[in-house]
Amino acid sequence: MTSSHVPLHPIEGGATAAQGFVAGSMACGIKPSGKPDLVLVASEAPATVAGVFTTNRVKAAPVLLCQRRVAGGRARAVVINSGNANACTGEAGMRAAERMAAAAARRLDLAADEALVLSTGVIGVPLPVDKIEAALPGLALSPEGGAEAARAIMTTDTRPKTAAMELEVDGRVVRVGGMAKGSGMIHPQMATMLAVITTDADVPSYDLQRHLTDAVGGSFNRIDVDGDMSTNDTVLLFANGASGVSLPDELFAAALAAVCVSLARQVAADGEGATKLLEITVTGAVSVEDAERAARAITRSNLVKAAMYGNDPNWGRILCAAGYSGALLDPAKARLTLQGTALYADGLPLPFDAAAVSADLRAPEVSVRLDLGVGDAQATAWGCDLTPEYVHINADYTT
Amino acid sequence: MTSSHVPLHPIEGGATAAQGFVAGSMACGIKPSGKPDLVLVASEAPATVAGVFTTNRVKAAPVLLCQRRVAGGRARAVVINSGNANACTGEAGMRAAERMAAAAARRLDLAADEALVLSTGVIGVPLPVDKIEAALPGLALSPEGGAEAARAIMTTDTRPKTAAMELEVDGRVVRVGGMAKGSGMIHPQMATMLAVITTDADVPSYDLQRHLTDAVGGSFNRIDVDGDMSTNDTVLLFANGASGVSLPDELFAAALAAVCVSLARQVAADGEGATKLLEITVTGAVSVEDAERAARAITRSNLVKAAMYGNDPNWGRILCAAGYSGALLDPAKARLTLQGTALYADGLPLPFDAAAVSADLRAPEVSVRLDLGVGDAQATAWGCDLTPEYVHINADYTT
Repeated sequence: MTSSHVPLHPIEGGATAAQGFVAGSMACGIKPSGKPDLVLVASEAPATVAGVFTTNRVKAAPVLLCQRRVAGGRARAVVINSGNANACTGEAGMRAAERMAAAAARRLDLAADEALVLSTGVIGVPLPVDKIEAALPGLALSPEGGAEAARAIMTTDTRPKTAAMELEVDGRVVRVGGMAKGSGMIHPQMATMLAVITTDADVPSYDLQRHLTDAVGGSFNRIDVDGDMSTNDTVLLFANGASGVSLPDELFAAALAAVCVSLARQVAADGEGATKLLEITVTGAVSVEDAERAARAITRSNLVKAAMYGNDPNWGRILCAAGYSGALLDPAKARLTLQGTALYADGLPLPFDAAAVSADLRAPEVSVRLDLGVGDAQATAWGCDLTPEYVHINADYTT
Repeated sequence: MTSSHVPLHPIEGGATAAQGFVAGSMACGIKPSGKPDLVLVASEAPATVAGVFTTNRVKAAPVLLCQRRVAGGRARAVVINSGNANACTGEAGMRAAERMAAAAARRLDLAADEALVLSTGVIGVPLPVDKIEAALPGLALSPEGGAEAARAIMTTDTRPKTAAMELEVDGRVVRVGGMAKGSGMIHPQMATMLAVITTDADVPSYDLQRHLTDAVGGSFNRIDVDGDMSTNDTVLLFANGASGVSLPDELFAAALAAVCVSLARQVAADGEGATKLLEITVTGAVSVEDAERAARAITRSNLVKAAMYGNDPNWGRILCAAGYSGALLDPAKARLTLQGTALYADGLPLPFDAAAVSADLRAPEVSVRLDLGVGDAQATAWGCDLTPEYVHINADYTT
């Protein structure tokens, strides 16, 4: 059985699409706006867990707590607050994260170390953990809570981000679903990519971590909004086996990748101030790593991003970014295509109708394809355009 | 004798400050505006030469030509055009660069390989080398040509950039001077940092290259306007020995560093759309490389740059950028100072008057000092703020 024989069906439900997962959300008073800022996602049965975390040396307290607990391979719930990152908060921040997890465990009647914690919001402000402790006992959980949960973890995201896939194997239904929030900083010092993914497939924790690492490598680690890596970035994956199905490796990988890529694209498209999604596919590389290096340099380039905002078919900047990425390329064999129009090949610019290509760039999604001309490997990365709005968002402060 | 005993005096003159160097400039018709776009700088006597070039794998034709000729260690002149980068122009571009150098050599009665070539401007457009060949015989050279030359190499720079230092050793005067242009892209696809430095010190070519590499490492390689590395970036250093003085190593290094740092700061301050220069000094690192890594990550961070534009004392973003730079740091021992006010120390935010620090940030130069808390090494990097004007400049195209 291969993944090509078992179709994946997109479904609704986000983090509670998979059987045996419930979620709830509410406003507990952390966000000054009074919007929902507290979320609990839980498995009704014991589950395995995997996590991928920011590599920033300045790690928020909830990241440090999660890393320790995920290493054990088992957890059943995660409590999430938006509006405060609990980062750069010292020892007091660690104690606040532990109290938050303990409150979630009490709410669910779990052992203390079965609950994980995520936070996103302002850096360097003490977490008002009292509010979380007071609110959690009253938080209602439901198998339909996924949609609202995705909304409650937003900070400056303009829309909630969910994805879920269903597949049928031997007459039994298996689901993988999740939610994510992007990096937004309208409020000062906010910046975090969080994702929580759940599945009712039966996956041992060792395999689960390997699958998640692979899937994140091809999705969340290939998006770029502004090149800044947060102190709080976290992706968690829970598997509770409620479907009774232990999927073949490649099938689970395909379903998980589909969910992760969908969420990652949604995060890139909703980057601060962004007006469009950029999809950069680099082919002809000597290795996947090289292809990824080139694709990510392009998505990170301010010059490319500004040109895309201006609908400017400025191919020199794209080639230039690939050139400094460290990826091996042969300028005399490289080939560049923008929205389907070839602009550069065999070491030379091709004549093209600049007005027509510029018109093609006025789209919610822009596709860049660059062949490096030196091999057979490829990779895709996603980003967004750089807009004056991005600068305004990040320059405004309450002083 | 140490550099601290021999004072360096800043002087005028730029690339012709040193004895025995002449320069000339004119408009030859490459820039549509009709502004000066052709420059020749030459030594009246044989000279040694050193160069540092872009590491972009997509290198412009003049860079490839210079690399070959600089390897020989001797050259006497460089001809520079602005308005066209002669990049991504294939074999025809290489022939154009060679013809341009040959025309300069004929003008000066030099052997063909004694002339170097630099180009800056649009990528992917054939260089109109006929115009250069027609113009060069009429180009007037003078020992006072340095100031005008600095103006003629500008593309979207808002002001010319020159620096020169004089020192007296044993009653004899030695000078090091130069000019640079920054990365500006008001016109599409322009992006190049060029610098030409001259000295009348007597320096053998092997030493010259080592000195230039060191000086560039502590100056031009520590500036960042937008994180994009051009296909044309080049720094050249000519030494003609006209002063008759062979300086002690450390003295020459100090004079050269002073010129390079001055030019580099001018380039950073005149970054596209920039309203202020950022000077980031990282201390307490385990190595100079680590200090540089952290300082450069901060100067490159869009979030930090946008905050500086908005006069926002957003210290979390600075610490965050150092955290993901790869430099070793101890969040519990790090210390951050912005315009002289300490904002973070010993793992905790310090209380501060946000309005007062914001007012301090309304300055043409902003100083950030970050101690990583793990060692004794330090490094300084320079950058500029990110402004809506930067995006407008780079999004506008003639389509």
